Amino acid sequence: MAGNTDKKSKGHINAKADEKFVEDLADRDDFAQWYQDLVYKTELADESPVRGCMVIRPYGYALWENMVRLLDDRIKATGHENAYFPLFIPRSFLEREAEHVEGFAPEVAWVTRAGKEELAEPLFVRPTSETVIGHMYAQWVQSYRDLPLLYNQWANVVRWEKRTRPFLRTTEFLWQEGHTVHRTEDEAQAETMLILQQVYQDFLEKELAIPVIAGLKSESEKFAGALRTYSLEAMMGDGKALQSATSHNLGQNFARSFDIKFQDSDGEVKIAWTTSWGASTRMVGGVIMVHGDTSGLRMPPRVAPIQAVIVPIWRKDEEREAVATLVAEVEGSLRAAGVRVKSDWREERPGFKYSHWELRGVPVRIEIGPRDAQNGQVVLVPRTDRSDKRTVAREAVAERVSALLAEIQQTLYDQALEFRKGRTYTANDYEEFQTLMADRDRLGFVEAWWCGDAACEAQIKAETQATIRCLPLEQPEGNGACVHCGRPSSAWAVFAKAY
Amino acid sequence: MAGNTDKKSKGHINAKADEKFVEDLADRDDFAQWYQDLVYKTELADESPVRGCMVIRPYGYALWENMVRLLDDRIKATGHENAYFPLFIPRSFLEREAEHVEGFAPEVAWVTRAGKEELAEPLFVRPTSETVIGHMYAQWVQSYRDLPLLYNQWANVVRWEKRTRPFLRTTEFLWQEGHTVHRTEDEAQAETMLILQQVYQDFLEKELAIPVIAGLKSESEKFAGALRTYSLEAMMGDGKALQSATSHNLGQNFARSFDIKFQDSDGEVKIAWTTSWGASTRMVGGVIMVHGDTSGLRMPPRVAPIQAVIVPIWRKDEEREAVATLVAEVEGSLRAAGVRVKSDWREERPGFKYSHWELRGVPVRIEIGPRDAQNGQVVLVPRTDRSDKRTVAREAVAERVSALLAEIQQTLYDQALEFRKGRTYTANDYEEFQTLMADRDRLGFVEAWWCGDAACEAQIKAETQATIRCLPLEQPEGNGACVHCGRPSSAWAVFAKAY
Repeated sequence: MAGNTDKKSKGHINAKADEKFVEDLADRDDFAQWYQDLVYKTELADESPVRGCMVIRPYGYALWENMVRLLDDRIKATGHENAYFPLFIPRSFLEREAEHVEGFAPEVAWVTRAGKEELAEPLFVRPTSETVIGHMYAQWVQSYRDLPLLYNQWANVVRWEKRTRPFLRTTEFLWQEGHTVHRTEDEAQAETMLILQQVYQDFLEKELAIPVIAGLKSESEKFAGALRTYSLEAMMGDGKALQSATSHNLGQNFARSFDIKFQDSDGEVKIAWTTSWGASTRMVGGVIMVHGDTSGLRMPPRVAPIQAVIVPIWRKDEEREAVATLVAEVEGSLRAAGVRVKSDWREERPGFKYSHWELRGVPVRIEIGPRDAQNGQVVLVPRTDRSDKRTVAREAVAERVSALLAEIQQTLYDQALEFRKGRTYTANDYEEFQTLMADRDRLGFVEAWWCGDAACEAQIKAETQATIRCLPLEQPEGNGACVHCGRPSSAWAVFAKAY
Repeated sequence: MAGNTDKKSKGHINAKADEKFVEDLADRDDFAQWYQDLVYKTELADESPVRGCMVIRPYGYALWENMVRLLDDRIKATGHENAYFPLFIPRSFLEREAEHVEGFAPEVAWVTRAGKEELAEPLFVRPTSETVIGHMYAQWVQSYRDLPLLYNQWANVVRWEKRTRPFLRTTEFLWQEGHTVHRTEDEAQAETMLILQQVYQDFLEKELAIPVIAGLKSESEKFAGALRTYSLEAMMGDGKALQSATSHNLGQNFARSFDIKFQDSDGEVKIAWTTSWGASTRMVGGVIMVHGDTSGLRMPPRVAPIQAVIVPIWRKDEEREAVATLVAEVEGSLRAAGVRVKSDWREERPGFKYSHWELRGVPVRIEIGPRDAQNGQVVLVPRTDRSDKRTVAREAVAERVSALLAEIQQTLYDQALEFRKGRTYTANDYEEFQTLMADRDRLGFVEAWWCGDAACEAQIKAETQATIRCLPLEQPEGNGACVHCGRPSSAWAVFAKAY
């Protein structure tokens, strides 16, 4: 029943010559190729015939569906309702908010014709929906009694990106975008932070096992048209940062442009305050790059499309029968316990199946052979540590698998946090900063003082490719010298190379 | 606690002068206006600034979400997996299937520009995805072992329609589209029928309480590129038909155009057989037009966003307190029993609230006043019969409400079936046929023999506006004379004016 794989040699899945290869997986040192291999070879997604668009295959979509459900639960639990707004938006809407048009105009797709008819006014395909939603909100909001207005939509959006990578940056992607309207600045700010921490951070850390740093974006990195943008930054397996979700306090910018006004309780007509916030299929890329290892994906159990895979092992027909009985029983008890389980009855050697499901990151493998059937037991193997095999009595399987899934979820989080801590540095001067950013093998987050000057930020980026990921919400006491210019600084920033 | 409404007068919700009007609702005789009023005044949807596109508001979207969940369960239970394919499709793909391009080219939206760049090959926005999915399937299907391939996608699609109506026909709409690949013609046909009956018919009848007739479309009404199209036809409250879902056996047409081939077990390379099938937000229109009455919507309990609304009744503060205690208890017990419940504590008169929730079609109203609080009881009022008030002890509320919801679900179905039966006629000759189709007050389905000639079908349509909705799966024995031309006919058809 032992696995047949030797992952350490060359990073390939199968090194044994007599075993059919499952898939070749690039060495993790070539992180970009390793990432692409994982996406395509595990059948999470495929390339499409349309530039920059991907096809999300059933295994990837099942992961996304689990993520959607758990994030949607949190969005609703905090008082938001779902709605749906049009895919197309009239050109004139884009131009209403000055910063917004500047940020998005270069990357919108234009519908100019329908059937054989040229459209009088071209429509753009939503890259985000502040404009069309703002237009509707202006009609729905009349009085302070209509506020707050707390809506979210699950939708596809399109941004014509120059360089695309599956999940991380695609021309079309799936996401949710929340859009809220408030009576006061304080309420809008409270909403922005509620979403950032209670919805997104809680979701990313508890469901995706991805530890994140919550913080404020610098002016140059904020959303086009926002007053303040907050983000959650995660460290990927190569030490780069992935902005995993964003929450924007839009101030009165969009309310002013789209005329969202209300009569307050004092009788005065006032301009409202709005927020918007989004999280996308990009998070799938985060799951891959945070948890994946040399053998393939490692799915966080809470969102894994398959949480446990049963691999039956037999040689003779009479063995198959005894094994099948126990497999059916175990599968039934796991399903009854709410575990997403699958039995792999393909006519392939066990070692091939082990590698197949390891590549796909299934958290728990359950091996059931003739001796197991005889003894009324099964063997559990966690994806996080193949050597940690556990023999379990048939009656205890559901309970033990559930416990093991929780354990694996925690392990993935702990390992990711440990990795991030080990790759987080403090730079006291610019030389140290540059050295850290140039060291590919130790690449990570560099924390340092920043003077707040956009020119400094731009130079650091030009010289090291590192950007300010965020100013963490938890700032140290006091102040220091800007890591670049040495001027007195009160802002503590996290720098990193980023996706 | 009595209602304050008199629906019979003029079809308005509130006729009492001293009561604040909730909304004016058009008389049901003006069915088109009544429909539009229901859509907009119940806040199911709103008009958008984009031609032919609607905004689905939270109340409408919650209904759609419930529908999606229940339909998705059935799609998965029958072995299908969800995936996601690109919104944009290259122009060349449209032209590959001759009938398909003819059917869809006039109504597709074209993306010709991105940012400032003119696209070398324009992309069309999917009106349906057979083409791009066919292209992917050709790559994924190699061997008979890869079959059947059973995928579904939930997506938005765009069809540039001349005349639009909210939910029924909109430029953009939401739907699911299933696309499957099979080894044999028989398997493709079995899949087509499985989806039609076990998935769609079961969903429409059990969840939406809409009785449907399952049947084959005539050649002129079938999907562009299909071998055979089957549909489910429902009768609306004005006697017109709504095609509520369709299932297509595509034969080898798309497989041939997109090169979906497989090596069979006999070693031969064969062309595959495919199906596709879809159901959309159009079904929301069906729910409105089948169940709505002079007081507003009537939501089928299984999909109702709010299944029970609690209306507290009080005058003095000390009354409010006692009522609030019981309201909280009842709300808690209903929620624990899985009932979607809401308490309406607005500072409005009870009669206003009754009308408000009747208009929105909430199946059960729960009235709780001071005397009820004292006696530990509540009053249940079904939306289907306001006079049928039921006083229920507090301990029994959850059980009784659940039972009442099931009863209302059945009542809605029974009433719709009764209505359809009463409006279904048999025409023995064309004069009778014409008379029936001309009688607006009795308009309905007319069953008759049809010779199978498209010319006859076209003339009937030109002369009466009636189309063949389908040839029901259950055909009578024997044959008769075509209702139009009198020639011997073996096909029994259902004719109706349709949406």
